Amino acid sequence: MITRMSSLFLRTLRDDPADAEVPSHKLLVRAGYIRRAAPGIYSWLPLGLKVFRNIENLVRREMDAIGAQEILLPALLPREPYETSERWTEYGPNLFRLRDRKGNDMLLGPTHEELFTLLVKGEYSSYKDLPVVLYQIQTKYRDEERPRAGLLRGREFVMKDSYSFDVDDAGLERSYDLHRAAYQRIFDGLGVKYVIVQATSGAMGGSASEEFLAECEVGEDTFVRSSESGYAANVEAVATPVPPALPVDGLPAPQVYDTGDTPTIATLVDWANGVLDREVTAADTLKNVLVKIRRPGGDWEITAVGVPGDREVDFKRLEASVEPAEVELLTDEDFAANPALVRGYIGPLGVQKAGFAYLADPRVVTGTRWITGADEPGKHVVDLVAGRDFTPDGVIEAAEVRAGDPSPDGRGVLEAARGIEIGHIFQLGRKYADAFELDVLGENGKPVRVTMGSYGLGVSRLVAVLAEQLHDDKGLVWPRAVAPFDVHLVIANKDEAAVAGAQQLAGDLDAAGLEVLFDDRKASPGVKFKDAELLGMPTVVVVGRGWAEGTVEIRDRATGEATAVPIEDAVSAVVAAVRED
Amino acid sequence: MITRMSSLFLRTLRDDPADAEVPSHKLLVRAGYIRRAAPGIYSWLPLGLKVFRNIENLVRREMDAIGAQEILLPALLPREPYETSERWTEYGPNLFRLRDRKGNDMLLGPTHEELFTLLVKGEYSSYKDLPVVLYQIQTKYRDEERPRAGLLRGREFVMKDSYSFDVDDAGLERSYDLHRAAYQRIFDGLGVKYVIVQATSGAMGGSASEEFLAECEVGEDTFVRSSESGYAANVEAVATPVPPALPVDGLPAPQVYDTGDTPTIATLVDWANGVLDREVTAADTLKNVLVKIRRPGGDWEITAVGVPGDREVDFKRLEASVEPAEVELLTDEDFAANPALVRGYIGPLGVQKAGFAYLADPRVVTGTRWITGADEPGKHVVDLVAGRDFTPDGVIEAAEVRAGDPSPDGRGVLEAARGIEIGHIFQLGRKYADAFELDVLGENGKPVRVTMGSYGLGVSRLVAVLAEQLHDDKGLVWPRAVAPFDVHLVIANKDEAAVAGAQQLAGDLDAAGLEVLFDDRKASPGVKFKDAELLGMPTVVVVGRGWAEGTVEIRDRATGEATAVPIEDAVSAVVAAVRED
Repeated sequence: MITRMSSLFLRTLRDDPADAEVPSHKLLVRAGYIRRAAPGIYSWLPLGLKVFRNIENLVRREMDAIGAQEILLPALLPREPYETSERWTEYGPNLFRLRDRKGNDMLLGPTHEELFTLLVKGEYSSYKDLPVVLYQIQTKYRDEERPRAGLLRGREFVMKDSYSFDVDDAGLERSYDLHRAAYQRIFDGLGVKYVIVQATSGAMGGSASEEFLAECEVGEDTFVRSSESGYAANVEAVATPVPPALPVDGLPAPQVYDTGDTPTIATLVDWANGVLDREVTAADTLKNVLVKIRRPGGDWEITAVGVPGDREVDFKRLEASVEPAEVELLTDEDFAANPALVRGYIGPLGVQKAGFAYLADPRVVTGTRWITGADEPGKHVVDLVAGRDFTPDGVIEAAEVRAGDPSPDGRGVLEAARGIEIGHIFQLGRKYADAFELDVLGENGKPVRVTMGSYGLGVSRLVAVLAEQLHDDKGLVWPRAVAPFDVHLVIANKDEAAVAGAQQLAGDLDAAGLEVLFDDRKASPGVKFKDAELLGMPTVVVVGRGWAEGTVEIRDRATGEATAVPIEDAVSAVVAAVRED
Repeated sequence: MITRMSSLFLRTLRDDPADAEVPSHKLLVRAGYIRRAAPGIYSWLPLGLKVFRNIENLVRREMDAIGAQEILLPALLPREPYETSERWTEYGPNLFRLRDRKGNDMLLGPTHEELFTLLVKGEYSSYKDLPVVLYQIQTKYRDEERPRAGLLRGREFVMKDSYSFDVDDAGLERSYDLHRAAYQRIFDGLGVKYVIVQATSGAMGGSASEEFLAECEVGEDTFVRSSESGYAANVEAVATPVPPALPVDGLPAPQVYDTGDTPTIATLVDWANGVLDREVTAADTLKNVLVKIRRPGGDWEITAVGVPGDREVDFKRLEASVEPAEVELLTDEDFAANPALVRGYIGPLGVQKAGFAYLADPRVVTGTRWITGADEPGKHVVDLVAGRDFTPDGVIEAAEVRAGDPSPDGRGVLEAARGIEIGHIFQLGRKYADAFELDVLGENGKPVRVTMGSYGLGVSRLVAVLAEQLHDDKGLVWPRAVAPFDVHLVIANKDEAAVAGAQQLAGDLDAAGLEVLFDDRKASPGVKFKDAELLGMPTVVVVGRGWAEGTVEIRDRATGEATAVPIEDAVSAVVAAVRED
């Protein structure tokens, strides 16, 4: 196919769009690949759609290769199945809800566990029918609070989601491993730089769970990896190594001090170093943060979260720990309504005395001694010993994870990096099978509850991820596997013979089976070269000044290398370049 | 590709689904091509999705061939553009409306004129940029009052919609003609039996408009065609031939009669034939039907519609005539509130005297004389002459069209048939360009308002249309162009050598480039043959009793012909059958 830029529906922009902050967003808009239709909602223009379809087809090929069967479910869905799974409520404001003309509640599907479960329940009834893996490549909807970064976090987007159905855990593991390997082939095939990290399962329920994160500075997900081992995890999934309990015997008794105006950890540490006869750091203090937690369908419940004073509470880790419950910080009104909670001087004893739960960081083991609030204005307690003077109601992962923290696998320390989630695979287990009573008749004639895996992959997001990872200051740099065109042929010579030669060359490249973008516009060579760099086809062929001497120039967009090639060798040289990568 | 039925996600059903009335709906569900997810909303299972994709690709190929450029717009759209075009209101309850978490009004796109217009306005600015034709193949939403017949009238469905942008009428006509020809190639390629009919443009606005109707007894659209000429039209679009005006001179004066209890046309005709000294038929009476009409954003306004008494008012024709206004029959309450309107005895004079509009059928020309209501209980007027005794406030196409009516082109009479709309092309003109001020700089340096065409084609609906037109009492009968598989290979012989031979044959057919559905299940030959007929692949190959004698059977699903073929010739015979059609 030859696509002529003289008639292509494309206008490149000189300036970055006002609402764009990250490079992929700026470049995809400037290069005319996408246009914004509403916040977090984009239109695909011809070039963008080609990249999107190329990725879609590569994903489809690898899913078919593991025996997954493609189907297509609706995006507009009835409320009932999501009521059964409780996600109608759990999704909160992230769900687009609507009513049809008859007043029935409906939703725009954010993910389709419910429908797939019901579908398999409707068709299958025997262990002989399993395993089965079904997938779809489909438009999904989430009413994000802060849609951002163009396609990176949109409200209408395309995902490949697949679901495996097995009779036992061994089968589920096989289905999971098949997906893991397929995802690696997909991302390797696309040339994405990514890391596989341990993840929490979030609102999805279930156990084993890994995320594929594209390494990217503008990513929303922070992940950590060990400096020595292969350990990597989403920050939300990091399990703090639990230190051994310490002996309580011989520790000094707790003592309450009048600490004056010391409402912050820093002022408290200053006070301690002035009064106590040992060196105190923020890590010796216990910071107690008051939050309220609401389980789906329940009321808000006040809870304290205790973390070592040298660490902040990481709200995303806290959210992941309590999910599907919601969590919020206590407001001024909440404090006013609970005078027993003395702001700035809260301690575990006062929290529990007031009837609220006290959850502590995993580092707060028996025998650790803390400086913390004494539940009276201006007062703190020193040498309050865990397991002796107070016992937390539970453990919670809420403290920030920091570079330099020991790796949970005991090897090396953690390093932090940022990434964009491009895939998520996990062993759902029987959460949805239980909700919808998905059983099959087992080999022994008794019903067996099916176990499921759920596997997502962000197809439209990958367009932006590739643009984010592969660009330079001049524009986009597509990998061959997904570039809209194999070659970008530029006429940069007004001479009639050169123009005719370029036409001929376009035809020859097309005949060689290549997808050709042909810049036959009347614009200046400078404008054309700038556009070629912005648009980012991997190989650019220039019919320019060299034509008179019998050569064309072949440029490699990624490396910038330019080679003069005899006209008669141009097609074979381009074909070689295209096949080579 | 070989797809084995032993692992294919497919269960055929013995019984018709309870909610299915038309054959395509029954068969697509029974054969496991689709499943219902909600009223008017369906899931595509593997076989259905293959047919759907085959149709989609054929449509894409023909659209690309006329130089249309593919893009993809969102389905979830902001309210504003539809407010500008007034369709936010005009669409009434057919539009799925919702609010996002910030309270912004949004909608699920039923068609995309607004967005395409804005898109072109955003990118293009010169006459040199035009013409351009853009299209998408995209999921659309309409909250149908009565979703029915499976995929034939759904609430979530896939359409190809394209839009042409030209600087002048001649350009628009070229774009229109290109689409018309492309649609003919698409429907011919699919083997659909269809007719092109003149159509009204409905809520879309604009002028020239044709529909492609698949001929089908279960179709919702009635259309008519001339017994002699090529004239064909949607019933809503039939323009009643206007008879010449007649001389008024010499006609008797109108005379009011006490007609007793004659509230219907039949009782009135009986009365007339008993009293008047000429033969009277229902066609001599003027029936006046009271309706109320509401223009978008306006109030209900009472209006009378006068039609010859031998014809019913066709509500769909009436609706099409007043669109985008809504129309309803007057209720008992309305009559009670307007005592001047004497039910059963209404005449044009009383209607106008009461201050309401009187619209008449095109046959009510000057000089026609009528027996009609005299606006008093039990009274009618005879010899009320149009143009002398009353003058309608306007003409309206509301009377039913009947087989035998003269063809509007003056050649032959009309015949009626039923069809399903599969395509609609029309010259929108400047309705949307005006609404969004879509101008380009003309050749003379002055702004030119762009003129548009709009072209829809029902991609998902075509799956059902093909099933509807091409099936028999045993099941589906797919045309080769869209069949999920080229060949359905059935093992109907338990002999080990036969089973191995069938495996070999499947591999050979695959190697010959065919898509093979391979029934390798342990089921009985009878079950397999029934399924093969139900599923409807065009060619069925049976490895059965003939194997021992060195033959396989090749069956043609459409004709039912079965031929025994030597095993060694099987592949070439199947390839020949596949290529032949």
